[in-house]
Amino acid sequence: MCPAKIADGGERGFVIPIGGAEERIDDPVILQRFVELCGGSDANIVIIPTASQLEETGPNYEVVFAELGVANAVSLPITTREDAQREDYVEELAKATGIFITGGNQLRLSTILGGTPVAQSIRKLNAAGVHVAGTSAGAAIMPEHMIAGGASGSLPNEQGVIFAPGLGLLSKVILDQHFSQRNRLGRLLSAVSYNPFASGLGICEDTAAFIGPDNVLEVVGSGNVTVVDPSDLQHSSMAEARSQESITLIGLKLHMLSSGARYCLNTREASPE
Amino acid sequence: MCPAKIADGGERGFVIPIGGAEERIDDPVILQRFVELCGGSDANIVIIPTASQLEETGPNYEVVFAELGVANAVSLPITTREDAQREDYVEELAKATGIFITGGNQLRLSTILGGTPVAQSIRKLNAAGVHVAGTSAGAAIMPEHMIAGGASGSLPNEQGVIFAPGLGLLSKVILDQHFSQRNRLGRLLSAVSYNPFASGLGICEDTAAFIGPDNVLEVVGSGNVTVVDPSDLQHSSMAEARSQESITLIGLKLHMLSSGARYCLNTREASPE
Repeated sequence: MCPAKIADGGERGFVIPIGGAEERIDDPVILQRFVELCGGSDANIVIIPTASQLEETGPNYEVVFAELGVANAVSLPITTREDAQREDYVEELAKATGIFITGGNQLRLSTILGGTPVAQSIRKLNAAGVHVAGTSAGAAIMPEHMIAGGASGSLPNEQGVIFAPGLGLLSKVILDQHFSQRNRLGRLLSAVSYNPFASGLGICEDTAAFIGPDNVLEVVGSGNVTVVDPSDLQHSSMAEARSQESITLIGLKLHMLSSGARYCLNTREASPE
Repeated sequence: MCPAKIADGGERGFVIPIGGAEERIDDPVILQRFVELCGGSDANIVIIPTASQLEETGPNYEVVFAELGVANAVSLPITTREDAQREDYVEELAKATGIFITGGNQLRLSTILGGTPVAQSIRKLNAAGVHVAGTSAGAAIMPEHMIAGGASGSLPNEQGVIFAPGLGLLSKVILDQHFSQRNRLGRLLSAVSYNPFASGLGICEDTAAFIGPDNVLEVVGSGNVTVVDPSDLQHSSMAEARSQESITLIGLKLHMLSSGARYCLNTREASPE
């Protein structure tokens, strides 16, 4: 699904995938920056805890945001597709200046939210300027093409990644999270080489890509965003390879980006600040 | 140390780093190809087992090469610097059409062989056309700048790699082995970014780079050679980074090469065959 249409003269809100395990108490730079974007103490943050099967996930983030000075942070306990059609939840979302999608299992997000009024609201609100952050599974769900699973390891593979349709807040991007911690270069390379139209972003834990309305991302947090840019890919053996056979990929670009570094999803240019 | 001088009109032998754990019995494509290069049944292969602390390592390879049809395969049990000065060993080396350096600990190779007549012989013989293969530690020792150690993981780090001077059969190359199996991208990126003059080769187990006298390598075996080419590196934060701080590297080229693929160390061009 492509991102929702932006009104003439408008601009979409930030899309902020976080690699999981973001610091929440001691110098929580990522969440703080998100809160500032959303209006600081005037922010109205709606939390979507659907990826998690733990009842306390949503309420816990309410406390985290309250401690960051946010007056209004409310979690919508959506656990079924029926919940995802509730009008009162859609009305709650309509008041948001920021939406935060928690971690858990991204297939819960896609199967429970996909195609519902809540999913449509998130898409439309982002297109209308509301910022959307998500951590771990909440980051995975953001692009058109979501990584739902795959093997760990550093090598690409014909069966190296499992895709599912995502929420479609971002196009031209393949996202992976817990990236270095779970050794996921191989599945990002697999994903990017299945169809080399997109930039691959591998986001470490406690690290976020703040992707602005101009499609320039800035890295925030303690880890790296690994960018794999296949736009100059000269050769790929992915189509011919049999299961478990080694893959040849020639001509990838690789950037390791740390805090403050930027990458433009449109021009594919990286810069240190 | 630079590679030894090649006589006018001559050409050096192949240099063949193997990523460790090469198949020795069931379809041993790497060792077979090495044996063919060295003359097949007429080959005279000298084994250097110094990296290993196991007495049986040398004799075991004598058996492996005998089973591949080599009439003369002899292991030199060099375990001290005194051994590495023995004239009879130097004479044995002088008869070799191929030299095979086993796995173990590359710091044993560099500390025991470094600067001795045996090391000088290997260098000069390779320059005169004798092929040199090495597996694991035996591969690590080959370049001017040897990776002696470092942390595992996919991210580069200011303290991510420990270098030691190597045997100097190859210049402009940084080599790592057991590459995907031990998750060593981070230390290869660290190594390459310390001084981005060289191509980084990360060689998987049961995989070899057959580097010809023309400096073109061909991949042989079941795994990948990961090539990191920093020749277009635009920015590196390596010099400013504090210990354990995330590193920014912008503009690396990355090739994943499987069996049959080639890479030229001089032009830095990769091709699928």
